[in-house]
Amino acid sequence: MTIPENKTTTPTIGVFDSGFGGLTVLRALLNHMPHARFVFIGDTARLPYGSKSQRTIARYAAQSARFLVNEQGAEYLVIACNTASALALDAIKEAVPVPVLGVIEPGAEAACGASRTGDVLVIATDATVQSHAYAAACRARGLRALEKACPLLVPLVEEGWTETEACAAQAASASPQVTATPRVAASPQVAVTAEVIRIYLTELIAEAAALGMNPDTLVLGCTHYPLLRSLIERTVPSGMRVIDSAESAAETAVHLFGQQDSAALPTAPQSLRCFATDSVEKFGRLGSRFLGWPVGNVELVDLGG
Amino acid sequence: MTIPENKTTTPTIGVFDSGFGGLTVLRALLNHMPHARFVFIGDTARLPYGSKSQRTIARYAAQSARFLVNEQGAEYLVIACNTASALALDAIKEAVPVPVLGVIEPGAEAACGASRTGDVLVIATDATVQSHAYAAACRARGLRALEKACPLLVPLVEEGWTETEACAAQAASASPQVTATPRVAASPQVAVTAEVIRIYLTELIAEAAALGMNPDTLVLGCTHYPLLRSLIERTVPSGMRVIDSAESAAETAVHLFGQQDSAALPTAPQSLRCFATDSVEKFGRLGSRFLGWPVGNVELVDLGG
Repeated sequence: MTIPENKTTTPTIGVFDSGFGGLTVLRALLNHMPHARFVFIGDTARLPYGSKSQRTIARYAAQSARFLVNEQGAEYLVIACNTASALALDAIKEAVPVPVLGVIEPGAEAACGASRTGDVLVIATDATVQSHAYAAACRARGLRALEKACPLLVPLVEEGWTETEACAAQAASASPQVTATPRVAASPQVAVTAEVIRIYLTELIAEAAALGMNPDTLVLGCTHYPLLRSLIERTVPSGMRVIDSAESAAETAVHLFGQQDSAALPTAPQSLRCFATDSVEKFGRLGSRFLGWPVGNVELVDLGG
Repeated sequence: MTIPENKTTTPTIGVFDSGFGGLTVLRALLNHMPHARFVFIGDTARLPYGSKSQRTIARYAAQSARFLVNEQGAEYLVIACNTASALALDAIKEAVPVPVLGVIEPGAEAACGASRTGDVLVIATDATVQSHAYAAACRARGLRALEKACPLLVPLVEEGWTETEACAAQAASASPQVTATPRVAASPQVAVTAEVIRIYLTELIAEAAALGMNPDTLVLGCTHYPLLRSLIERTVPSGMRVIDSAESAAETAVHLFGQQDSAALPTAPQSLRCFATDSVEKFGRLGSRFLGWPVGNVELVDLGG
């Protein structure tokens, strides 16, 4: 990856996802690069990418990448979408003349640093698992990886059946007299999500054991899963490390895209513009949950066919 | 609706869905019209319709309707898709010169026949609820309807966390020594689905009570939900009637499209051809679950842009 010579002290970073799950990657980037300008686009009109052919995904992703670079001035791109990272990274790199980072290689690299046994588990969407991109990236680092599709986790997050949402709902309705710590896990909705996670992980760990594997690391291979991280961490066997590929991608971006000496930079306010190709209302409503604070005004953009 | 004068004794009925959930409607049609020829198309390349604009949905649905009528000789059409029935029925009627039946009016008509209090509950996908098509169809019949989106139920059915699937899995793995009746509900997967249904219905019934309603009928307004019917029937309050709009549409089709004197017809073997615009593999795998027996060979068809 070549970093431009003339990089500015306040770089503009374009972040792309097929939907808004990639806002968890943006959230991590905002934490790590407080002085950068960010432009995010969610290609919500054409999601889900997972059911489309590789050629179609590559064409769509290249359109979004060109929008971020040519029209919004992005000097670096982060592909905050596992499906596009798995199936369209080369097409995006060909489409734009700036450094491009996906989420899969940083996730595999972090797993490589975390695992002692060399055996790694990956949970992701059906499309990401079928691409076997994580298994390939792990194999290239000498790791064995077993992948499992967990199709119910994305709809559970989008329905808001997570601890974050339950906390927010409890805080909003809490009476001032109540001083005990709220037992969020007692919410029936969160209990469902916890049980779904338990079922999936039990199956995955049993499959790994049947293959003679001794896994000590679990990679969250979907940008929705960081919202389930604490539930997942309480479910995995004691000692198993949980790797969030959104967080790993943000750390890699800091390393590659600069701002090591951020203290010397002017403390300009963070700048963020969000675009979506459709469903601006849903983006605004659900996006804030992923970003951790209101996404603000979401602008509609038409990328054409 | 005008029925053609020259209708054949073995009518060809075209059935359309954006995916394969509509196979539950086809299943009911096959039961009610054993001598008809059926042609089914699932526009799987372009699902989900729910996130698209009305104009786009109308254009897509009209393409499928023309394929069924002009290329496959369908003399009648059943729109086995709640979203297309809600948003594209008029466009389909304009596109083809044959009688067209959706699923919403038959569902509302059955609710009208079942309800004594005049208050009806409807569960459906987000897109169907946002269209308020069931509420309008109920209002036209003097009923009050309260609709609720249940976004987790479709993924739970597609993941196979239903009693039908659990029964099949138990039967396949049952040891011959085991003679006790299997307790299917004890499956952790089915228990999750039962709990999700309980949460949704509890919320819906509480909302209805807050509005001063006294509902005695629940309409299943999504073609996936018939696979959850027995779980739902065990969850609703005692005495509440459950209306399956797939079954209601099939009964209406028999009435409108003929074969009242089916005993007089030659007992030709049932004929069924299935087409999909993409994901033929997923269609074949999941479709059998909805149809109740193997869908057989699924043919790929390209409807263009």
